Amino acid sequence: MRQTSLRAHNLALVLRLVAASPTPISRARIAGASGLTRATVSTIVDELIAGGLVDFADESRTGVGRPSVGVTLAGTRPAGLGMEVNVDYLATCVIDLAGQVRHREVVLSDQRGRSPAAAWEALAAPAARALAAAAAQGLVVHSGAVALPGLIEDAVVHVAPNLGWHRVALPARIGDLLVDFGNEANLAAFGELHACELSSFLYVSGEIGIGAGIVVNSELFRGTRGWAGELGHVTVDPAGKPCRCGSRGCLEQYAGEDAIREAASLPDAAELVDRAKAGDEATLASLGRAGLALGVALSSTVNLLDLPAVVLGGHFAPLAEWLCPPIEAELRQRVLTARWSSPLIRPSVLGAEATVIGAARTVTQAIINDPARYLASIRP
Amino acid sequence: MRQTSLRAHNLALVLRLVAASPTPISRARIAGASGLTRATVSTIVDELIAGGLVDFADESRTGVGRPSVGVTLAGTRPAGLGMEVNVDYLATCVIDLAGQVRHREVVLSDQRGRSPAAAWEALAAPAARALAAAAAQGLVVHSGAVALPGLIEDAVVHVAPNLGWHRVALPARIGDLLVDFGNEANLAAFGELHACELSSFLYVSGEIGIGAGIVVNSELFRGTRGWAGELGHVTVDPAGKPCRCGSRGCLEQYAGEDAIREAASLPDAAELVDRAKAGDEATLASLGRAGLALGVALSSTVNLLDLPAVVLGGHFAPLAEWLCPPIEAELRQRVLTARWSSPLIRPSVLGAEATVIGAARTVTQAIINDPARYLASIRP
Repeated sequence: MRQTSLRAHNLALVLRLVAASPTPISRARIAGASGLTRATVSTIVDELIAGGLVDFADESRTGVGRPSVGVTLAGTRPAGLGMEVNVDYLATCVIDLAGQVRHREVVLSDQRGRSPAAAWEALAAPAARALAAAAAQGLVVHSGAVALPGLIEDAVVHVAPNLGWHRVALPARIGDLLVDFGNEANLAAFGELHACELSSFLYVSGEIGIGAGIVVNSELFRGTRGWAGELGHVTVDPAGKPCRCGSRGCLEQYAGEDAIREAASLPDAAELVDRAKAGDEATLASLGRAGLALGVALSSTVNLLDLPAVVLGGHFAPLAEWLCPPIEAELRQRVLTARWSSPLIRPSVLGAEATVIGAARTVTQAIINDPARYLASIRP
Repeated sequence: MRQTSLRAHNLALVLRLVAASPTPISRARIAGASGLTRATVSTIVDELIAGGLVDFADESRTGVGRPSVGVTLAGTRPAGLGMEVNVDYLATCVIDLAGQVRHREVVLSDQRGRSPAAAWEALAAPAARALAAAAAQGLVVHSGAVALPGLIEDAVVHVAPNLGWHRVALPARIGDLLVDFGNEANLAAFGELHACELSSFLYVSGEIGIGAGIVVNSELFRGTRGWAGELGHVTVDPAGKPCRCGSRGCLEQYAGEDAIREAASLPDAAELVDRAKAGDEATLASLGRAGLALGVALSSTVNLLDLPAVVLGGHFAPLAEWLCPPIEAELRQRVLTARWSSPLIRPSVLGAEATVIGAARTVTQAIINDPARYLASIRP
């Protein structure tokens, strides 16, 4: 038992060092950083190579002396499948252990009024295509993670207001694949955390609904039950427009995708960027109003959470040019610390794909966190 | 070196078990829970007794068999001095290691327009009286902690809007006593955490200003720089009343002590409870408006932070009877999770003293966390 857990510990320790290194890392440096002997490191690296988790890479020359062979995360075998069920689309993506996106697909399809069972059924086909695409590249998808725009606890969606779901039990599999579920904004924040250089930020996920993921010192802040970050239901006008959630004046009613599109009198939100670029007055007014509402809600959030940066994701990312000025004006006025420490506002690095990439990344990250468990699971 | 740190570890381990036990705990049970030998436990307990940190107490009979002598935190020697500089009063208190309040004093005195230096000078006399009162009871005050209604970092107050302080360097001592500084709402939340049975809650500190302390799983959430919890500057009406912070429509302008008093046309906030009990219409209307504003701001906070409970502290505690109904109505309407998990709202257990008790408690808790360091500091 002790022997087993020591091996598990050492596998995880070595793999973590490989994953944290931006360039291939030599076994000698792994030994130095881990305190393990070079012989132990070599044995463990061999085991990780046999399991398809790491590879030898080009020699890493970082100083004087004899060049040595470096070890890097393998992009050749284990992979994760990310899926997203959102209000007006389904998305899938496959990422390998090295974090590269190896397959992606978005299916535009309105989920409002559809039953959860119909949504799983609709997801089965793109999921199967993703598995086939992974297999064609020699990848083996270990498991899947599905992002939902709702509050989830113990395999139950309590509520996903914009899907119209209430108390929905979640399946253990999509097709034949084992799947986990998570909140879309939290998963997007997780994806962004691994793609950008910030370690503390509020990730704002703009879709039909608006959610947020709170990252403090590289950790997701989930609240006591995992329901933190419901930015879309922060009140910006107590007597304002009614919201699907039953409240009034929620941020979503001013800055959600439908709200911006309707105020701009556009039939399709995809036209927003072009219309804004063309200087269409109704579009610019709608974006100004959305930016002001976002600025009010984000100021309250920064006052409560003390976060140094806000990342605009989802449909907010391509609209950042027009949203940032009114957001920044509100932050300057309303954030108590703005005078000496103004929060940075910027668009997401991953854009609309942050959620589905973040979902896939939870699968590969779980393998990196506990390689012994993964290796046991693939043993024939 | 190893020997020294092992001793420090064992001292802390034993003292933590004693502190966590609601009744006196026997050395045999300490040995069982810590994995230390009974001989080691006896040596460590003797050392803790010599340092005045624990005492033997009445026999603890918790089962069949021979009764054994229990160990409990000592209330006889080390103590902490808590101090508070707030807008219209100064407060001090002494607590012993067992958590008992051994001295308390509140001096009503308006600090607005006073210089920080004048505030330290004004604090020196009640601090000296507290030290004398402690000495008269055989207690030795180890150090002090001062609560301020502002944003503090590295011994500088960036801003304390209601004191009118900006970029104030903090002194290392008040009189001859070494002191630390902290945000008043955070310290009040820390005090309340040790006095109530909740482990996750938002502590709302109502004074002239309004602050909050965020407690998640028995830990204070401080944000990235310790500035989290600025509930008083959450916007409840974007176009509302101007606030001292430079913004508009901040919660403070509707539910701060001055705001409630002025809207009730009272010269003194101390009359609020009596007027409300007497059914005075202007007072009830003002409390209703404050409750509504609190309900809006707290709903946004719960949506963002996923906290299961809100504790009303400071001047809100005695007003809870009138504030709770409108707060609860807003939470029911505005909190996304309220339909299946409604947040608990209740007044603070410690009331107006939470802040100064919490400040004093940081001193005694630091001793409990690192007894070896304390014992080294008192060695003659």
